[in-house]
Amino acid sequence: MEQLTVVKIGGKVIEDPVALKAFLKDFAKIAGHKLLVHGGGRSATTLAEKLGVKTQMVSGRRITDAATLDIAVMVYAGLVNKTLVAQLQALGVDAIGLTGADVNLIRSTKRPKKDGIDYGLVGDVQDVNTPIISEFLQQCRVPVLAPITHDGSGQLLNTNADTIASETAKSLSFDYNVRLIFCFEKKGVLSDEKDENSVIQFIDKEEFQHLKDEGIITDGMIPKIENALQAIEAGVKEVIITRPEDMNNGKGTFIR
Amino acid sequence: MEQLTVVKIGGKVIEDPVALKAFLKDFAKIAGHKLLVHGGGRSATTLAEKLGVKTQMVSGRRITDAATLDIAVMVYAGLVNKTLVAQLQALGVDAIGLTGADVNLIRSTKRPKKDGIDYGLVGDVQDVNTPIISEFLQQCRVPVLAPITHDGSGQLLNTNADTIASETAKSLSFDYNVRLIFCFEKKGVLSDEKDENSVIQFIDKEEFQHLKDEGIITDGMIPKIENALQAIEAGVKEVIITRPEDMNNGKGTFIR
Repeated sequence: MEQLTVVKIGGKVIEDPVALKAFLKDFAKIAGHKLLVHGGGRSATTLAEKLGVKTQMVSGRRITDAATLDIAVMVYAGLVNKTLVAQLQALGVDAIGLTGADVNLIRSTKRPKKDGIDYGLVGDVQDVNTPIISEFLQQCRVPVLAPITHDGSGQLLNTNADTIASETAKSLSFDYNVRLIFCFEKKGVLSDEKDENSVIQFIDKEEFQHLKDEGIITDGMIPKIENALQAIEAGVKEVIITRPEDMNNGKGTFIR
Repeated sequence: MEQLTVVKIGGKVIEDPVALKAFLKDFAKIAGHKLLVHGGGRSATTLAEKLGVKTQMVSGRRITDAATLDIAVMVYAGLVNKTLVAQLQALGVDAIGLTGADVNLIRSTKRPKKDGIDYGLVGDVQDVNTPIISEFLQQCRVPVLAPITHDGSGQLLNTNADTIASETAKSLSFDYNVRLIFCFEKKGVLSDEKDENSVIQFIDKEEFQHLKDEGIITDGMIPKIENALQAIEAGVKEVIITRPEDMNNGKGTFIR
């Protein structure tokens, strides 16, 4: 099977033009098929503040109302996506920027109410159109996916970029040897949050249980690793959690 | 040769959800290959006002500075484009929303200074990637083009939607029988601006000269018709200037 690398970026790298340029150069160097999934960083929040659109929180969770969705679509599918595409094209990468609505690429369903909380216009991924993504890859095109999907009835939905990356990686693992790279601010999964260099090199299912039991991995990192382990179980060969600048260096946490 | 209909919409129809829905239903009914080019209506101006981005005017011409370009990309390539795509998908049209940067679809050059005026980040279309558009059409996909292009060096550029429509139509006329429809607010080209029903049914090169000489066609309509006649000379079979609601009725001004 051919190699495919799925990379997810978010947060700081998108907001820092110098870091972004460096990242895109590294991304362009990746051999074999590749696909980029991006979040939007804080730019959506900044725009919302400028427009006076208040972030609605219910029980500590962000709610996507109609005005917030419009902002997400503008920032993610518009500004961030097209900036990435134009810069990749300049690097000789034949990027094509897409949301889940385009060519019906990713269909989702509006998240049902849970414990009385309505998350609003948030989509849970239902179906990834693998044949079309594969078709693009075979034509040496590089899909750049914004975290916006649709329900098939005309409604756009805000969708978690990590989920889009892992669902896409999973669905393509039937036809490709898929490597899934999550870029974030830290060097990897840390065994000591206060020590930037305490990167855990390998995690598997067993090791994860151990790290959880010992209280070494906590909070936000737990669903991230659960997500990665699910991807491995579904056929993804390797999940790497690392910094953008270490992406091609073999550094970071490797989950298998 | 196969039929291709290129439709350009802008202004009011985009801003009015009811009119837009009706238009998209009509668009979905068009037989043969089709392609949609859209402007952004006043939504970009509204967003700019809300964000306190002032529209810079030099000698009565709008200047696209960096902040204005960001807004154009957000509104045109983001909100408007993806709203159209999601609604077309719901109507069973396999829409794919694209800018000129995506798959290097439309390359442009930054408009040179003219009479000392620097228009800023505005692109003049240089090259339409006809083979890729044709490839999408042959796969029964419907490209939805936002009026944003790129210079190939990483810079996005604001580009006139009418020009994108006519350049795309012209470049595809080598391989398709192309019909180009410009939808706007009026029933067609009027012989009397005060009489909504004074639609001129046919215009050719000779008739255009006559109408200009007589002062019947003036101002903003002159470049529109010149643009249409150039498209005809370049091989487009027919240009129609009409209202969105008359698009499929055989009403409007026909330029051949």
